[in-house]
Amino acid sequence: MSNLPKIAWIGLGIMGSPMAENLIKAGYTVTGYTLEADKLERLAAAGGTAATSAAEAVTDADVIITMVPASPHVEALAYGPDGILAHARRGALLIDMSSITPQTSIDLAKAAADKGIRVLDAPVSGGEAGAVEAVLSIMAGGEQADFDAARPLLEALGKTIVLCGPHGAGQTVKAANQLIVAVNIQACAEAVVFLEKSGVDLTAALEVLNGGLAGSTVLTRKKDNFTNRDFQPGFRIDLHHKDMGIVTDAARTVGAALPVGTLVAGLVASLRAQGDGGLDHSALLRGVERLSGHTTES
Amino acid sequence: MSNLPKIAWIGLGIMGSPMAENLIKAGYTVTGYTLEADKLERLAAAGGTAATSAAEAVTDADVIITMVPASPHVEALAYGPDGILAHARRGALLIDMSSITPQTSIDLAKAAADKGIRVLDAPVSGGEAGAVEAVLSIMAGGEQADFDAARPLLEALGKTIVLCGPHGAGQTVKAANQLIVAVNIQACAEAVVFLEKSGVDLTAALEVLNGGLAGSTVLTRKKDNFTNRDFQPGFRIDLHHKDMGIVTDAARTVGAALPVGTLVAGLVASLRAQGDGGLDHSALLRGVERLSGHTTES
Amino acid sequence: MSNLPKIAWIGLGIMGSPMAENLIKAGYTVTGYTLEADKLERLAAAGGTAATSAAEAVTDADVIITMVPASPHVEALAYGPDGILAHARRGALLIDMSSITPQTSIDLAKAAADKGIRVLDAPVSGGEAGAVEAVLSIMAGGEQADFDAARPLLEALGKTIVLCGPHGAGQTVKAANQLIVAVNIQACAEAVVFLEKSGVDLTAALEVLNGGLAGSTVLTRKKDNFTNRDFQPGFRIDLHHKDMGIVTDAARTVGAALPVGTLVAGLVASLRAQGDGGLDHSALLRGVERLSGHTTES
Amino acid sequence: MSNLPKIAWIGLGIMGSPMAENLIKAGYTVTGYTLEADKLERLAAAGGTAATSAAEAVTDADVIITMVPASPHVEALAYGPDGILAHARRGALLIDMSSITPQTSIDLAKAAADKGIRVLDAPVSGGEAGAVEAVLSIMAGGEQADFDAARPLLEALGKTIVLCGPHGAGQTVKAANQLIVAVNIQACAEAVVFLEKSGVDLTAALEVLNGGLAGSTVLTRKKDNFTNRDFQPGFRIDLHHKDMGIVTDAARTVGAALPVGTLVAGLVASLRAQGDGGLDHSALLRGVERLSGHTTES
Repeated sequence: MSNLPKIAWIGLGIMGSPMAENLIKAGYTVTGYTLEADKLERLAAAGGTAATSAAEAVTDADVIITMVPASPHVEALAYGPDGILAHARRGALLIDMSSITPQTSIDLAKAAADKGIRVLDAPVSGGEAGAVEAVLSIMAGGEQADFDAARPLLEALGKTIVLCGPHGAGQTVKAANQLIVAVNIQACAEAVVFLEKSGVDLTAALEVLNGGLAGSTVLTRKKDNFTNRDFQPGFRIDLHHKDMGIVTDAARTVGAALPVGTLVAGLVASLRAQGDGGLDHSALLRGVERLSGHTTES
Repeated sequence: MSNLPKIAWIGLGIMGSPMAENLIKAGYTVTGYTLEADKLERLAAAGGTAATSAAEAVTDADVIITMVPASPHVEALAYGPDGILAHARRGALLIDMSSITPQTSIDLAKAAADKGIRVLDAPVSGGEAGAVEAVLSIMAGGEQADFDAARPLLEALGKTIVLCGPHGAGQTVKAANQLIVAVNIQACAEAVVFLEKSGVDLTAALEVLNGGLAGSTVLTRKKDNFTNRDFQPGFRIDLHHKDMGIVTDAARTVGAALPVGTLVAGLVASLRAQGDGGLDHSALLRGVERLSGHTTES
Repeated sequence: MSNLPKIAWIGLGIMGSPMAENLIKAGYTVTGYTLEADKLERLAAAGGTAATSAAEAVTDADVIITMVPASPHVEALAYGPDGILAHARRGALLIDMSSITPQTSIDLAKAAADKGIRVLDAPVSGGEAGAVEAVLSIMAGGEQADFDAARPLLEALGKTIVLCGPHGAGQTVKAANQLIVAVNIQACAEAVVFLEKSGVDLTAALEVLNGGLAGSTVLTRKKDNFTNRDFQPGFRIDLHHKDMGIVTDAARTVGAALPVGTLVAGLVASLRAQGDGGLDHSALLRGVERLSGHTTES
Repeated sequence: MSNLPKIAWIGLGIMGSPMAENLIKAGYTVTGYTLEADKLERLAAAGGTAATSAAEAVTDADVIITMVPASPHVEALAYGPDGILAHARRGALLIDMSSITPQTSIDLAKAAADKGIRVLDAPVSGGEAGAVEAVLSIMAGGEQADFDAARPLLEALGKTIVLCGPHGAGQTVKAANQLIVAVNIQACAEAVVFLEKSGVDLTAALEVLNGGLAGSTVLTRKKDNFTNRDFQPGFRIDLHHKDMGIVTDAARTVGAALPVGTLVAGLVASLRAQGDGGLDHSALLRGVERLSGHTTES
């Protein structure tokens, strides 16, 4: 075990906890830090070491992995006085698996390089189940050599692991992922209301639709959410709203037209404004129902 | 073989010809009619019988199958003086596999019932390859008994075969299929331009996207069209334009909101107005490229 | 007065009644027909003559004016056995002031020409107030000579009277009018919710907005509807929904892209689906409020 | 004249120069600063005093007026070491007439209050002509007392001058103005292409449209741009793009749905991506033409 890199893991939420535990199972030495005491206890129980600060966690690490909610959290962790750039050793590899703006990843890589710290952005897709089962899709951005060095470790976390381009490219692909997912959920939601209002058997229809060119992972995984109006998360509208902000801003910066993407971003924002931010993103169906006067809400 | 129903097949285009031949291979006696002489010769060569008119084809048939481009063709075939309602025998089953408006199917079923003729609407999804390989998805509308009677025959044509509701329900589901497909192609097209303008490796990105929640049959089948800008049809923009007209009209009739669907219908219409009606529907990518000033056209 | 043309007026609704009365005031002999007895009595009281059928009204007329709700009413009036083409004399001038599809006007002109009857399409803008005060905008399509002949009469009904092109052109311009009006109402509605949610004084804001490049007749006339959430019609959502159907269909036929127009057509349809079809079109504000979780509904 | 406040004017561009000169004409003592030497010479020739730095300009001023392109310029001017907060005297009134984000105005007012400096945000609408002729619409945010103090001075610059709410409210109303303007231009552009493709006389049509409920200041001022395809600015797409960013961001922050506004923001961005950023905003017509395959470009 001694020739495996020593890991610091920061951010032990719904995704981070099972991911860190998968590294421990794979034989890595993991020192973790997060703000919630119970999550640190859980890590310790799984065989990891609980640090009392981010600085303590990263000081001796070969690889530092961050998995936090949004750009400001990454920036605070990286640049703060108790943070990574101030305390990690030269030559360490920082893998940020959070979903943040591509520009934040690019800026971080540059600032870290000045300290001799290498960076990969490596956000994931696949949800809590994918984290637990170590079948996440991992979309990385950065240098080939750093990606090659990280790959064995990433293979303990996910199944599809691809280097997509330079720093920020992983975040860009994650943003594209969220774009396609939101639009496809909306398309299915419009189809559901259209089918129901037309008097069609929804279960039969979704089965045959999923068997043809309209088939998708969204339809497979969210079919029951649609049919049963079960909008327990899953992936919350609030988070998808954050992500639609990332993709529309990034698209505006590079000059890519998203006529449908921006409309759907607005519909996601609208659901949130109506108080549905805590529901699963399949609740886009609720928005279409309201627009159609087709209320099944109880 | 003598107890299999006798089939009349009208409409021997890109889809109809291989479908009729699959029935012949399955042991059915098929008498065909279409306007193009070479298609009739092809049917005869495959073991079918060429009729000289629709009336001649349908007179003795137990089951009449129509596979023609649009509502006016179905109406002319059904109601014309040389047509099906005038010449089919009482008790015959008419299976219309064309993609037309649900209302046309409903009206046809009613008019046919007055003549003692039963009707199913049974449009398909899966394209020329699905027709040739007999793996079409078939979405039917009509009476359960008629569907049960037709099922053995339909199993010689497709793989997923589902009764979705009353008359017109098959067309409604087909319309929903075309809605989801067009919107998802557009979502992928927006993602492609966003990825390229962001400097990401497109091939790597599409691979990882297809492995996660953004994955879909569209992404699987159209990936190479996107990457290579290969817009040879495939399924033509002109036909998808017709279908978007069906779904937006039908949704308007039943009062279902399609904010994203109508926007995409407009983008499909726009491509056609720009002279791209003959291209594959993956050419929605061209529209996004133009809107983004990201021209790869030669 | 004997050299003024004899008028038949068919359709005495909210618009038709005051318009017919304005002709009577201007000295014309007007024979009217409509389905509602009380409207015929009102016409007689104003100095007109009530006919017992359309046929009776039109038989001796020099000029026949129709003002009815939609295309099917015009077609029934024109082509029915009791109708205009069957009973008007050769050389009569038919002025259809209804708002219908351009194609219906084109077809009518052609059919009427076969009977020696001349036709103008001449829909109006300006609402009930404009009809009463004879200040309507009248947008005509047809032959210059027929327009010149009709002009003195039209001047008794409106203020801005323009020949816009061949048969159907008046309807096309009316359709464009309804497109711009709906989109501009929606723009104002989005601005209103944005302003209120931002804590701005709405009355002050609308005053200054109307003084700049954002100023419009919509803002002038509908300002109080927005401020007071007073959605008594006025012009009903149901009617604007019909008109958005005309413009989106006609645009589809000629290949004109309406990305924003079709989205707004969907929002109008959505209001109707939510049961607000009977409200004034300024109620598009309600739709934006709901999408924004900004409910002021009581 | 000695009891008129002493003015410092920073930012002497297309708008700022004539505005500052209008103050001089009204009897005010104006010390100006800008980066371009020729603009300072022009101010001196008009009777003002050219300062060699912002600090020098503001030191003795009773009222400081800023008119610069965007939020970063305002922030640099306000917070920089040579800037306003560092050098203006306690009790001075800072009137920022730039069009920037509401949040920047709110933050500035707070920071300035710590230094005893009062602030109004007072962006304008009306363009270069409005600036020269002193008929601008001025939409202000801030304290009533400060607005009252500023009014005599503002009356030398504009015609419609309204306090719309607290700090930032002026910017919010300006953002709403730009929203309505862009959407209404787009509506007119869609109507123009629809009318031309339908064979209607555009000049006649726009005349009658402007006379009815579709009438607007946009139609009045931009009619000739549409008819002649004259897209010389005027107000550039690049600037309207910046403003659409402000309004969509601000709406997202307060939770106001802009389904049509965000779509139009995308169309503005798209024109820019196609290289038309330097054209007048009426060039949204070009975008509709391209979407409609209706090219009149030479």
